[in-house]
Amino acid sequence: MSEPDYDADLPANVERALTEFIGRAGTEICTTEPSVQTGIDALSDFVLNGGKRLRPTFAWWGWRGAGGDPAGPDAEGVLQAAASLELIQACALIHDDLIDSSDSRRGSPTVHIAFAKHHADQGWLGSPATFGLAAAVLIGDLALAWADDMFADAPLPAAKIALARPAWRAMRTEVLAGQYLDMRTQATGDTSVEAALRIDMLKTAAYTVQRPLHLGAALAGADEELISTLLDFGGDVGVAFQLRDDLLGVFGDPSVTGKPAGDDLREGKRTLLVALGLENAARRDRPEAAKIISGAIGNATLSDTDVEAVRQALTEVGAVDAVERRIDELTGTAMAALDRARLAAPATAELTALVVKATKRAY
Amino acid sequence: MSEPDYDADLPANVERALTEFIGRAGTEICTTEPSVQTGIDALSDFVLNGGKRLRPTFAWWGWRGAGGDPAGPDAEGVLQAAASLELIQACALIHDDLIDSSDSRRGSPTVHIAFAKHHADQGWLGSPATFGLAAAVLIGDLALAWADDMFADAPLPAAKIALARPAWRAMRTEVLAGQYLDMRTQATGDTSVEAALRIDMLKTAAYTVQRPLHLGAALAGADEELISTLLDFGGDVGVAFQLRDDLLGVFGDPSVTGKPAGDDLREGKRTLLVALGLENAARRDRPEAAKIISGAIGNATLSDTDVEAVRQALTEVGAVDAVERRIDELTGTAMAALDRARLAAPATAELTALVVKATKRAY
Repeated sequence: MSEPDYDADLPANVERALTEFIGRAGTEICTTEPSVQTGIDALSDFVLNGGKRLRPTFAWWGWRGAGGDPAGPDAEGVLQAAASLELIQACALIHDDLIDSSDSRRGSPTVHIAFAKHHADQGWLGSPATFGLAAAVLIGDLALAWADDMFADAPLPAAKIALARPAWRAMRTEVLAGQYLDMRTQATGDTSVEAALRIDMLKTAAYTVQRPLHLGAALAGADEELISTLLDFGGDVGVAFQLRDDLLGVFGDPSVTGKPAGDDLREGKRTLLVALGLENAARRDRPEAAKIISGAIGNATLSDTDVEAVRQALTEVGAVDAVERRIDELTGTAMAALDRARLAAPATAELTALVVKATKRAY
Repeated sequence: MSEPDYDADLPANVERALTEFIGRAGTEICTTEPSVQTGIDALSDFVLNGGKRLRPTFAWWGWRGAGGDPAGPDAEGVLQAAASLELIQACALIHDDLIDSSDSRRGSPTVHIAFAKHHADQGWLGSPATFGLAAAVLIGDLALAWADDMFADAPLPAAKIALARPAWRAMRTEVLAGQYLDMRTQATGDTSVEAALRIDMLKTAAYTVQRPLHLGAALAGADEELISTLLDFGGDVGVAFQLRDDLLGVFGDPSVTGKPAGDDLREGKRTLLVALGLENAARRDRPEAAKIISGAIGNATLSDTDVEAVRQALTEVGAVDAVERRIDELTGTAMAALDRARLAAPATAELTALVVKATKRAY
């Protein structure tokens, strides 16, 4: 077998590491208790079937940029530690889908829906929905426990794992805090710009970009200054990603985004786009626009015509331009931080390509 | 401050370690995001407010029995690693209560109920029940992530933590597999003796006794033979605990057990007691008894009179005697294994006292 070319084909290597880990851990427990196979298969399918592997990619380039050698003895261990982030993400998504009562993800039924259907198909006792809930809670928990196992048992010197633990700790607590803040904000009805930005920082920037970069750089023994610069870069890039995602959620082409246009509005997501829309409408004394926007948030029955009206309102009050400007500014400051970081080649080029791809106008 | 006397007051020391850890981790995230304080407080109250600290106690005596020195440099680190088991337990209970739709635990509202009430009291947007579900899922997840942090960051040499990782890995996967098997068995209606025993092995024996002992002994550098003997001891003791608990669930005094008599029946728990009741009723051709027992499982409207009829049926077909005999046998083989283990004093005496306390007839 030839040596893996990590740099050239990172997603395939991440998937290989996940396949190996889940195979090993799954075989172990299914030998003890064969009836859990269905649960393990569901987790395996969920993790291996799709996803952009964004978090492992940032972790990998954080490591490479801080001097990690892809031909050296640590490469496979770093790959495994980076790939473990996908198991955290599996827990976050499986539990999120349950909380949001989402029926499908990436074209397949969500875990709680699939298990409820399995229960109903088998004509089992009790409520299918309760069975689905139980399965989604437990399979998500297993993903979280396995993420820790995969990270902690990565074949790396213990001292290097220890260096990465502050990033690992912060990431898991921050994403859960971000989700908590998100549900709390939806409940309180806080539509402020400030609340939207705080959620973006914790749920997207910290979890998706900052901490994966931090983790990778720490595994390479990066100093405080480099880590701090990478956190600056990751914070700006992560918020810019989220703002582009927010725009796509309202203005995006469903055939590209993979979800119906306006679903973010129907679900009541508190985005900066909406917050700026309401703020600008108030400031510019445009009560009609304010009414259209606020009436759309969390309105599950929103039609395509309604969504079009919200698009017009957001555009007219200048919220779209304001978000675009902010994406440009954040991308600019991020690129300046990346420049200051003076990463080892080709990390700068790879990270730049990721930033461009995830922040460019796509509609 | 005087040195902690771990042996003499283990629960208080476990609570001190948990208070310190949650204080530290909670302050860190609340500094970033103050609005998560309510969630952290709920977790803290849950963990610190009650519980017998059974798992940390087994871990501690596993370590002491394998030669750990309570006056040595590792004692505080082992205490922290042992105390982290209470955070796994917090996740398991918070998520279990959600899955079972339980309203109260230890005299307080369960987490999902408390947060639903908070939502309703504040008059927030959306459904209180959904908010409660989201809070319980996320707070349970946080407990699981923090368990890993508390264990992995315990102040011990990395090589010792590495020795304990197989026990740590097995324990978390086994308890989740046990819960999965439990819900699956309730759904399929499998009332076999074999299914009941498999659930008891995974959910109680492995998780509560075997793996905590294994974890502690491994932290002291125990060899394979000692660990294997402790697993024998823990398997038998753990199942005996569960069988006593099953008897108390049907025959226990509510003022002692803290829950209404017969609740295990109402909840549809597949216990060995019930499995043997059905098996014996069939073998002895007692269709009336079989009908009373099977009609009670999962019957939420069971009255006290109904529970009394089930008690009589279980007794008459010999299921109660059979379970008592099995407890005696398991206790006997467990004590023989403990004898073979030749643990350092006073671990043998302490473990013996725990076995006696948790398996004796109490009604």
